[in-house]
Amino acid sequence: MRIALDAMGGDHAPEQTVKGAFDFLCQSPDEDVTVILVGCEDTVKAETVKYPFDMTRIDIIHAPEVVSMNDRPARIVKTKRDSSLVRTVELVKSGEADGAVSAGSTGALLSASLLLLDRIPGVRRPAVCPLIPSDHGGFLLCDAGANVDVRASDLVQFALMARANSIHIFDHSRPHIGLLNIGTEAGKGNELTLKAHDLFLTHVDNFVGNVEACDLFAGVADVVICDGFVGNILMKFAEGLGMTLARWLPGLLGEHLSPQAMRQAREGLAALTNIAEVGGGGPLFGIDGVVIVGHGRARAASVAAAINLARKMVDLGMVEAMRQELAALRQPVKE
Amino acid sequence: MRIALDAMGGDHAPEQTVKGAFDFLCQSPDEDVTVILVGCEDTVKAETVKYPFDMTRIDIIHAPEVVSMNDRPARIVKTKRDSSLVRTVELVKSGEADGAVSAGSTGALLSASLLLLDRIPGVRRPAVCPLIPSDHGGFLLCDAGANVDVRASDLVQFALMARANSIHIFDHSRPHIGLLNIGTEAGKGNELTLKAHDLFLTHVDNFVGNVEACDLFAGVADVVICDGFVGNILMKFAEGLGMTLARWLPGLLGEHLSPQAMRQAREGLAALTNIAEVGGGGPLFGIDGVVIVGHGRARAASVAAAINLARKMVDLGMVEAMRQELAALRQPVKE
Repeated sequence: MRIALDAMGGDHAPEQTVKGAFDFLCQSPDEDVTVILVGCEDTVKAETVKYPFDMTRIDIIHAPEVVSMNDRPARIVKTKRDSSLVRTVELVKSGEADGAVSAGSTGALLSASLLLLDRIPGVRRPAVCPLIPSDHGGFLLCDAGANVDVRASDLVQFALMARANSIHIFDHSRPHIGLLNIGTEAGKGNELTLKAHDLFLTHVDNFVGNVEACDLFAGVADVVICDGFVGNILMKFAEGLGMTLARWLPGLLGEHLSPQAMRQAREGLAALTNIAEVGGGGPLFGIDGVVIVGHGRARAASVAAAINLARKMVDLGMVEAMRQELAALRQPVKE
Repeated sequence: MRIALDAMGGDHAPEQTVKGAFDFLCQSPDEDVTVILVGCEDTVKAETVKYPFDMTRIDIIHAPEVVSMNDRPARIVKTKRDSSLVRTVELVKSGEADGAVSAGSTGALLSASLLLLDRIPGVRRPAVCPLIPSDHGGFLLCDAGANVDVRASDLVQFALMARANSIHIFDHSRPHIGLLNIGTEAGKGNELTLKAHDLFLTHVDNFVGNVEACDLFAGVADVVICDGFVGNILMKFAEGLGMTLARWLPGLLGEHLSPQAMRQAREGLAALTNIAEVGGGGPLFGIDGVVIVGHGRARAASVAAAINLARKMVDLGMVEAMRQELAALRQPVKE
């Protein structure tokens, strides 16, 4: 199996991306897994020589360009064909890689994946679906930011795809699926969630109903469905709140903690609330291929986790599993 | 001045609501302010006798019924005319009170306020607008949950009303107004926020553009505008995350803290993230009268803060100030 990694994507690339690839290989017992580092060859090589590791499980593919935040995502395949991000996705298209990982621009990765790999037949919108840590082993949040305007029937597709992942990747035999809403009662919500609630009752197995944001960490559902506007804001809010709490800690606990313990507490808090980082990125659901969106601020551990997630998805045939899950819709979803 | 308090509203009523009224009076130097406790007379009296306080600044008005979560908000004025919540709002309508406070059902309070007090002319949708604590003195979040489906022009009205409050209540001479979005760039967002961004450029003074959820606590704006679906989810998410972090603290810091210090840390964390509680409730903007939505879990300190907010809004003539702010729209808002 070969996983392509956009070595130039993310705030800490290429140093942390390359380190993440080596970390993954050190942890991965499977000799058959190779990582393809995609990026400017000289730059990537300068990083790889830092690690005294057998290079037989590392390939480097040269891609001279880098996608920047100023590039328009929708045109990325045309304007930056030779970028590490586009080339990473192309390797999946050509069959040279089985899965792709990039911590670069989510919009560009989504656009390149749509254009080069297309969608699973019947899927209208792809979604990104990270695992959010919680007291109860975590929950899948879908969509965390791929789409900002969706239909209720899109949310049904997100639920089915996330369900398949919860079962196969996270070993839930019968995951609880919740719809993120402003109240638990069936009559609560906006136009979108009211409609989605009705559709979920018909089409989503083990639907536990509306779930509230205050209960997410208490394990109220294994899969939480929302539109990408709300999901993205939630993820970013958690990070901001965590950083704020870490700043507030000295006032709260200063007298009780040594400077060293305080530093440890701050780092712990930041790690707990930096949910995208902890979860190691999220797969792009609905794309006809394995593509993992890494966090923009991913460091080596997070990159390694994202590569490992790609490996698992390929190993378990998740694209095929999602295809079957979607095909098993008991009837066409009408809004 | 007379502020009517729904003594039976909220999870900890009437004990904490009545205590909150006395706390407010003890803290308030102004002898001219009276609190009217609205609720079942015997029950309320049984609470008031606990406090050795001069009763000249307390009135009790009998209202035998209580609004429950099972009551349909939209029909509350018809079905529970004799409830403490409806009677509290009616006192403002009849001129017997200058402002109303209730920690009961937000939906019922909104519905009663709309029916009995109506809107400020020109306002299409009211909004609820609490102060969220931050490193920088806090920011106003509007709408935190009164509306789930809004138009972009509604968000403009929310911005103008919140702006007036930021200036008069919180002494910002020229508050920064931000639009909550999934990216800071002008082209980011869903249909609603894209449209709103354009309207804000024309109609909202000192608009700082899109703001991201991760930057809210860092003081990026004094006023943050969003629809009530997103705002409500944010508030609840912050509470849930705070409670989770408090649960996680022992694992993080257990070896460094005495049991007493740990308890203090947990309580501090919960207080910092229980944003509705800290802020003491939020006013209902756009209603032609002063109405404060208390937090459902409000305790005495929060109730006292909500009464004080009502007092300030009456004192400063905030309804008139908002009316003027809305009238000053440079041109009619077209979408």
